[in-house]
Amino acid sequence: MLSEKMLELGTNRSVIRDLFEFGRKRKAEIGEDKVFDFSLGNPSVPAPACVKEAAMDLLENEDEILLHGYTSAQGDAGLREAIAAYINGQHGTTLTADSLYITVGAAASLSISLKALAEEGDEFITFAPFFPEYRVFVENTGSKFVTVDCDRRDFQIDEKAFEAAVTEHTKGIILNSPNNPSGVVITEEGIQNVCRILEEKQREYGHPIFLISDEPYRELVYGDVKVPYLMNYYDNTLVCYSYSKSLSLPGERIGYIAVSDRAVEWRKIYAAICGAGRALGYVCAPSLFQQVVKRCQGQVADVSVYKKNRDILLKALTEYGYHCVKPDGAFYLFVEALEEDAGAFSERAKEFELLLVPADSFGAPGFVRISYCVSTEQIENSLPAFRALARAYGK
Amino acid sequence: MLSEKMLELGTNRSVIRDLFEFGRKRKAEIGEDKVFDFSLGNPSVPAPACVKEAAMDLLENEDEILLHGYTSAQGDAGLREAIAAYINGQHGTTLTADSLYITVGAAASLSISLKALAEEGDEFITFAPFFPEYRVFVENTGSKFVTVDCDRRDFQIDEKAFEAAVTEHTKGIILNSPNNPSGVVITEEGIQNVCRILEEKQREYGHPIFLISDEPYRELVYGDVKVPYLMNYYDNTLVCYSYSKSLSLPGERIGYIAVSDRAVEWRKIYAAICGAGRALGYVCAPSLFQQVVKRCQGQVADVSVYKKNRDILLKALTEYGYHCVKPDGAFYLFVEALEEDAGAFSERAKEFELLLVPADSFGAPGFVRISYCVSTEQIENSLPAFRALARAYGK
Repeated sequence: MLSEKMLELGTNRSVIRDLFEFGRKRKAEIGEDKVFDFSLGNPSVPAPACVKEAAMDLLENEDEILLHGYTSAQGDAGLREAIAAYINGQHGTTLTADSLYITVGAAASLSISLKALAEEGDEFITFAPFFPEYRVFVENTGSKFVTVDCDRRDFQIDEKAFEAAVTEHTKGIILNSPNNPSGVVITEEGIQNVCRILEEKQREYGHPIFLISDEPYRELVYGDVKVPYLMNYYDNTLVCYSYSKSLSLPGERIGYIAVSDRAVEWRKIYAAICGAGRALGYVCAPSLFQQVVKRCQGQVADVSVYKKNRDILLKALTEYGYHCVKPDGAFYLFVEALEEDAGAFSERAKEFELLLVPADSFGAPGFVRISYCVSTEQIENSLPAFRALARAYGK
Repeated sequence: MLSEKMLELGTNRSVIRDLFEFGRKRKAEIGEDKVFDFSLGNPSVPAPACVKEAAMDLLENEDEILLHGYTSAQGDAGLREAIAAYINGQHGTTLTADSLYITVGAAASLSISLKALAEEGDEFITFAPFFPEYRVFVENTGSKFVTVDCDRRDFQIDEKAFEAAVTEHTKGIILNSPNNPSGVVITEEGIQNVCRILEEKQREYGHPIFLISDEPYRELVYGDVKVPYLMNYYDNTLVCYSYSKSLSLPGERIGYIAVSDRAVEWRKIYAAICGAGRALGYVCAPSLFQQVVKRCQGQVADVSVYKKNRDILLKALTEYGYHCVKPDGAFYLFVEALEEDAGAFSERAKEFELLLVPADSFGAPGFVRISYCVSTEQIENSLPAFRALARAYGK
């Protein structure tokens, strides 16, 4: 009667969503401030002032028919030029508007890129832990989803494991740094090693292998940490970006795909991306926010609260006896569960009103993810609960 | 190296887009007002006042984090309730928020619905002429795209041809009324006949056949013409809607899918729709415009200019000797080409600075589509050119 696969995807709610719903009910029972919900990756800081200013000005002064009208499928030409200029200024690339395809956010960027590249029998590799929807998007193209575990000590890339996973069927790899859920930023050395292996494998198999960089958290890094720009390390690179986190606009659905102008036959790749967007039912990205984002190039929401939250949590949890992976970016802290089964640990944490996401569905059993994109007050108020939870495990 | 199918979809520009680009160049050569571009279906009237009012008020007064934050994947609950209440008030249905899934416009509504329903070996039927992307969306699910010609005299449904096209593999039919490109509104009798045939075939084959109603032009009808609400005629109905035309917001990408609460196992269908949205990379519809649309339920842009344009064109072209299909809705006039090959006729029309879309790609060779969503001034100024074109063919 209908697609069993789609029914399954639509019925199996994610563990994150389940925890969040549990939290809503629990808050209604015992009070908002008594439940410490660390489940969702929803930005907790407002958009920078330029967003409101731009939107109000556009609504007040622009021709409505143009403002709310269709743009071309690949996005407004002026916006694409502005993004190309911004990327070039930041990273020394030589992109033009012709390399940029504006999308309805990062999920669209990824699903369109994969659809454009995938042929029968292809495989796509990602590094675990990973964002669970990667599996959905890859499998939707009919391709095989392959995961390679990161090094459990620092969650950097395990080169040997990666090298062993690349086969003649590998069409591309998805790299996500800063990483959701670990918060880890892959080092420049790690990037160089991945690119070297890819170059060798391309030569060995005689066909391109694409590096798809999913980087919605690019601007959310703390201290002196640098996120290498992958186009400068590897020619066959596609960058999938979203303004959801940098401009705190997750609901407005706006992002892009940038195809390196050094990729093999990059104009063909770009055309296939246009075709994939069409096939998936995307017409254009929201027109008002295309113009807003054009005016806000280079702006970032004030993300200093995320660093503050990270510092408080990391220090306290380490003191209490937890083993934490130090996050240099994004707004996630990855913590080893205090028993083998992270699901059971997450259940136990609920007794202390702590909502922590077990990382099994991220491909990292034995860990939980703490989303610290919350108020600093919530972080501070939750510390006694974290301490009590540790004590319950004899720490 | 990449998907040949996506490359082809992204490379073959539509004839409409080609004509539009030709028009842009030609206007630069001889002047904006000398070229009569009837190629695009872009609304030419501004959004109703409530759109700007709602957007400005929301930006000014709402919490930014909530306003621009993720909504649930199926859309804001309050918006879904408001739409259900509006539909129920208009059409006497008994929908609730649980039947509504908010989308990034009509193309997304269709591609998600088809993806949710399609199983291996399925066929979907539509009536020619049809919007060319239907083929793309159906074939993207791996299903067979079947077309049934309308009656060439009035472009109403040819029941016998339709009945003959339904097979045991038919999973659904797509019905688009008011129709793009013919402007025809299917009569109530035509709808009743289609539904009767579907009921019989469901019984014969022992499985549901779904009626997918694509109705972005529902509010664009002229005079006393009524557009029957299909859920009231057939239980297994899904309505795909977009605010692009009714609120003149095509670039903002907002619409919905409504699943009839009388459809067989409708909650499962809804769940499969949620799954399909996920698989295609849709996260949620743009959040600001979800709230805008919530405040503008029942509002329609001032579409009286479309009727005025239709009346002027229909009267004049009939006088000049063209055979026109009388459009009761949308903003398209369907005209028989004055030679067998509509492509050649469209080329000839260019000599008179008239840009008319040959309807071959809509599945109706021998006709051209005139989009009259332009200024009345353009309509009036174009009449001598239409007359001269007719004379060139000895009319």
